[in-house]
Amino acid sequence: MRISGLAERTGVPVATLKYYLREGLLHTGTATARTQALYDATHVERVRLVRALTDSAGLSLGAVREVLAVLDDPPSTRHELLGAAQRVMLAREEGRQQDRPAPGDGPADGPDPWQARAAELVATRDWCPDDDPLVARLAGQLRAAEAAGIDLPDAYLDALAEGAETVAAADVASVPEDGAGAVKRVVVGTLLTDPVLLTLRRMAQQRASADVAPAD
Amino acid sequence: MRISGLAERTGVPVATLKYYLREGLLHTGTATARTQALYDATHVERVRLVRALTDSAGLSLGAVREVLAVLDDPPSTRHELLGAAQRVMLAREEGRQQDRPAPGDGPADGPDPWQARAAELVATRDWCPDDDPLVARLAGQLRAAEAAGIDLPDAYLDALAEGAETVAAADVASVPEDGAGAVKRVVVGTLLTDPVLLTLRRMAQQRASADVAPAD
Repeated sequence: MRISGLAERTGVPVATLKYYLREGLLHTGTATARTQALYDATHVERVRLVRALTDSAGLSLGAVREVLAVLDDPPSTRHELLGAAQRVMLAREEGRQQDRPAPGDGPADGPDPWQARAAELVATRDWCPDDDPLVARLAGQLRAAEAAGIDLPDAYLDALAEGAETVAAADVASVPEDGAGAVKRVVVGTLLTDPVLLTLRRMAQQRASADVAPAD
Repeated sequence: MRISGLAERTGVPVATLKYYLREGLLHTGTATARTQALYDATHVERVRLVRALTDSAGLSLGAVREVLAVLDDPPSTRHELLGAAQRVMLAREEGRQQDRPAPGDGPADGPDPWQARAAELVATRDWCPDDDPLVARLAGQLRAAEAAGIDLPDAYLDALAEGAETVAAADVASVPEDGAGAVKRVVVGTLLTDPVLLTLRRMAQQRASADVAPAD
C-alpha cells in the first residue's frame, strides 16, 4: 500500500507517519519511484505499536525508540531479557528526575530512611538485590509521597506489595518461550497493562468505598 | 521566611517558586514591602505537594491545578468525594487521547468488543455502572494493548483485577474520616502511590521470573 493507505489502515495522519520515518521509529518502505514507496503489514504493526506506546502507555518518542531497539535486537537469554526490559522501563520516566533526593534527605545527612525502608521491603520478600536501580526508585517515590503528607504504614505497603505479586505472577506466566515473543510480552505487555492496572484500581476503589460508606 | 528561605527549605529554585505564584499553584505570602513577602509552613507544604505531583506522579501543571482545586474546596460527602477524586484522576491523562477509538473499531462498525469486555468485567465484580467514564477508558487501554499484539486472556485480566482489589481495599481502609483529610488521601494518595505500585510490580516480576527460569 502507499503511505496514504497506511494512514487509512492505522488512523495515523500521513504527516505523522513521515515524522516516524524521519525519526527512525518506522522502517522505510520499498521504493517504487523517487518519491514513492510501498508499505506492508509489518508497517501497520509497527505504527500500531508506536501509537499504543505513546497514547496508552504515555511514553515519549525517546522512550519508544529504546523499546523498539530492544524488540529489534532481543537479548538471547531469559536472564538478559529481564535486565533489558527493566532498563527500558526505568528509562521511561527518566526526564522526571523522581529519583533526585530532596534537600535534607540523603547520605549527607546520615542514612536515608526511605532507602532503608525500600531495601527492607525487597529483602523481606526476596525480590531483588538492594543495589537494584528499582530500589532507589522506590525510595524516591516513598519519599515524595511522605513529603506530600501521605502516610505509608507497613500494613499499607504490604497490601501494595501483595497486589503487585498477584499481577507479577500472571505477568511471568504469560511470557512465551521464544526470545522475540518473550521480550515483547515483558516490555510492551508491562508498559501497556500498567495503565490498565491503574484504571482497575480506581474501579475497585469505587466498590470498596461503597462497601464501607453507602452513598450519603 | 523570604522566598529564598522557601527555596532552601523545599529545594525548589526561586524562579520556579515565582512561576508557581504566577500560575496560582502557590498562594501569595504576606506582603512586607512592594516587592517582598513572607512565607510560612503552609507554603512549604504546598510546594512539596506540587513537586511530588509533578515529579513522582508525573502530572502536568494543569492536572496539578485541578487536584489543588479539589483539595482547597473539598466535597462535603464521601460519595461526592469519590466522584471528585475520579474526575481529577481521569483528567490526569486527558492530553493523551487514549480513549479515542481506533479506525475500524467503534459503533460505526457494530458493537465495540472492548467496550463489551470492559463492561462485563465491571459487572462481574460489581465494581461500577457500565456508563462510568472509567469503563470507556479501560476499553481504550485494552484495545491499545491488543492493537500492539498483546493478548489479554480472561485469566490474565482476572489476575490484574485481583491485584487491583487487594490494593483498593487497603486504599479505602487508609482514608480518614474528616472531609479534607479524606479527599487528600484519595486523590493525592492514589496519584502518589500509582508509581509505587508499578515499581513493586517490576520488582515482583524479577522474583517471579527467577522462580520459573533460573539465570541461564
